[in-house]
Amino acid sequence: MNEILRRDAEQIIQASLRAVQPDAAVRRALGRYRSQGGRTVLVAAGKAAWQMARSAVEVLGAVDGGIVITKYGHARGEIPGVVCCEAGHPVPDENGFAATGKALELVRGLQKEDTVLFLLSGGGSALFEKPRVSAEELRDVTRQLLACGADIVEINTVRKRLSHVKGGRFAQLCAPAQVFSVVLSDIVGDPLDMIASGPACPDRSTCAQAEAVAEKYGLRLTPEARRLLEEETPKALDNVRTEITGSVRELCAAASRQCRELGYEPVLLTDGLCCEAREAGSFLASVLRTHAGERRRLAFIAGGETVVRLTGGGLGGRNQELALAAAPIISGIACGAVFSVGSDGTDGPTDAAGGYVDGDTLSALEERGLNVCRVLEDNDAYHALEAVNGLIVTGPTGTNVNDVAVALLRP
Amino acid sequence: MNEILRRDAEQIIQASLRAVQPDAAVRRALGRYRSQGGRTVLVAAGKAAWQMARSAVEVLGAVDGGIVITKYGHARGEIPGVVCCEAGHPVPDENGFAATGKALELVRGLQKEDTVLFLLSGGGSALFEKPRVSAEELRDVTRQLLACGADIVEINTVRKRLSHVKGGRFAQLCAPAQVFSVVLSDIVGDPLDMIASGPACPDRSTCAQAEAVAEKYGLRLTPEARRLLEEETPKALDNVRTEITGSVRELCAAASRQCRELGYEPVLLTDGLCCEAREAGSFLASVLRTHAGERRRLAFIAGGETVVRLTGGGLGGRNQELALAAAPIISGIACGAVFSVGSDGTDGPTDAAGGYVDGDTLSALEERGLNVCRVLEDNDAYHALEAVNGLIVTGPTGTNVNDVAVALLRP
Repeated sequence: MNEILRRDAEQIIQASLRAVQPDAAVRRALGRYRSQGGRTVLVAAGKAAWQMARSAVEVLGAVDGGIVITKYGHARGEIPGVVCCEAGHPVPDENGFAATGKALELVRGLQKEDTVLFLLSGGGSALFEKPRVSAEELRDVTRQLLACGADIVEINTVRKRLSHVKGGRFAQLCAPAQVFSVVLSDIVGDPLDMIASGPACPDRSTCAQAEAVAEKYGLRLTPEARRLLEEETPKALDNVRTEITGSVRELCAAASRQCRELGYEPVLLTDGLCCEAREAGSFLASVLRTHAGERRRLAFIAGGETVVRLTGGGLGGRNQELALAAAPIISGIACGAVFSVGSDGTDGPTDAAGGYVDGDTLSALEERGLNVCRVLEDNDAYHALEAVNGLIVTGPTGTNVNDVAVALLRP
Repeated sequence: MNEILRRDAEQIIQASLRAVQPDAAVRRALGRYRSQGGRTVLVAAGKAAWQMARSAVEVLGAVDGGIVITKYGHARGEIPGVVCCEAGHPVPDENGFAATGKALELVRGLQKEDTVLFLLSGGGSALFEKPRVSAEELRDVTRQLLACGADIVEINTVRKRLSHVKGGRFAQLCAPAQVFSVVLSDIVGDPLDMIASGPACPDRSTCAQAEAVAEKYGLRLTPEARRLLEEETPKALDNVRTEITGSVRELCAAASRQCRELGYEPVLLTDGLCCEAREAGSFLASVLRTHAGERRRLAFIAGGETVVRLTGGGLGGRNQELALAAAPIISGIACGAVFSVGSDGTDGPTDAAGGYVDGDTLSALEERGLNVCRVLEDNDAYHALEAVNGLIVTGPTGTNVNDVAVALLRP
């Protein structure tokens, strides 16, 4: 293993993860917040809700009431003036519905000069929900849509209409108060109407589309639910300002900065990676191989969220697969390394955040009788990388803004 | 469809293909050839052998004898002073063995000041062969190795030792004459010992490795073949000079030049692409999407040879799949296009050379009821691209140096 490259990789990872911590991200976003002179009410929902809320209260000094709705086990203590609730994720439950109801009570009766500070992070779709149908029917409709192969856009088009808060309705209920929305994005491309189904985002889908989905799949609905499909969601919201923060774009930008600090010339390839993990690794490794002869330090950066093709029953994650797939292609390049890391610190069902390989990795694997193709077929990247000291371990990071992969050349 | 981008794409394709024509490539390589003052004998083998030989004779004026060994139907007329032979490909046959024997007679008895101009192109492995065992045994050994899952390196390690010409032996037989070898590379990375099993390239594999392969797979060999495995191939050749030309690197360089001519800033990502076609398309499209906001013309270039994952029974090829897979990701980017083209002019079993998509393609497909995911699952890119005027058709080009894919941004 090339110890210098490995150390550079660790430094780039640490700096990148620091930059997208909810705390840092909220601080950055609130730098652009100005009070309207009225009350400030805080509503935070998602897996990072607690950290985001705590940072906000620290920055603002105090809030005039607030609520945190996060996943079980994710509230880490008391926050002055804020009620902390825990609820079910990924399957929503009654605690979530009740907490969301409390949030609606908090924002009721606010005035034009008041502000709702709305802090949203991954998992918000399940955690921030108050259905307009029974919990049972909501579950049944979701099950039906999944079973007949509806895509996520179709599912959301229907579900937004069965919800009190999704599809821009939460912001509508906050009016005439202003909503200052801080979104910690975990979806590549930051589609605001998709993140938690956009409680503070004008809805682009229409009733006609929702009814078309219901007809296309022959959805079984109660008369009440069928009537709700005809109620339009807000198409414009004039009381919302949104700051997207801590997105994969910032993760890539932070990686770029740290690469430059270490003397590399950073080249951002993409912050919207969405292809298969192992193929992304192969592509990135080809880029490195092509440039391996240049006499300058280069860092090719690709952020996003790859997918794992399941072909075996081994242990691994998309970042580990991406890195491992690069190993054969960069084999023998003494000055090259490829690594990939998930910003939440857990890559697949493992205790690793990602993987690191360099020009020596393939021969180290071969010495141990490990064949990269076979390991990838088994989806067993974890054990292979473990054997050659190629696991990246950070522990849970408290954030989730997708992944970043980097190919380093240090001639 | 964006007609300006489409026209740019066509111009880039035409210019790139012109640059890697065997004729142009041979001319370029022979610019570095100096006669030793003696005779010049020409030996050309491969699918482009006829074009390469004709160009060489045109450049040199005349040769002192020569032979072309190409695939049936690939000789296009007489070349002064050169015997043209046709033979079997991909399965070698007696005509190929006989023609190779004639080539060996041609180079026998040459002097130190003489030169063998050796022109090699894709298909040379089957076309340029004279086995040291019976044709029957050669076939049988190959069959055994394939059946037991031996990889291409293992197969070549054994077969080089059963051949009069492979593994550097042809150059050895030419000595003391000089060999000026011009290789039109069709393998990514230009591994000279792999192209046609390296008749003029020192062999890195050893007898011990060949015997280990025979033992590993329990090869059934005649005593004569077993004895041949113990005869070492040349490990160094001091009479060979090699010019690699018309490789995918030159294809990418030509694409870069033409992009620059059209006002784009070319960015060579890689000339060693080897991942799955549709995933490469997705990656390249993500790169384009990330940079779509920049106010300058950019051209991201990736050369190589992707592979198609067969999941359906439709019609298509790797370049068409690459382009089609890019369509959903670049959808709506008015100033962006992705195209990919195979330099031989035939992409998969189709009459198209590749595919073109731009920001309008996805909606054009949807209007026709075509879903990209489903089309790719069916491996039916040809019909989908045909429906939206996205096929690139060049006709057979007479060369084969892999593919080039380009993502264009023209804001």
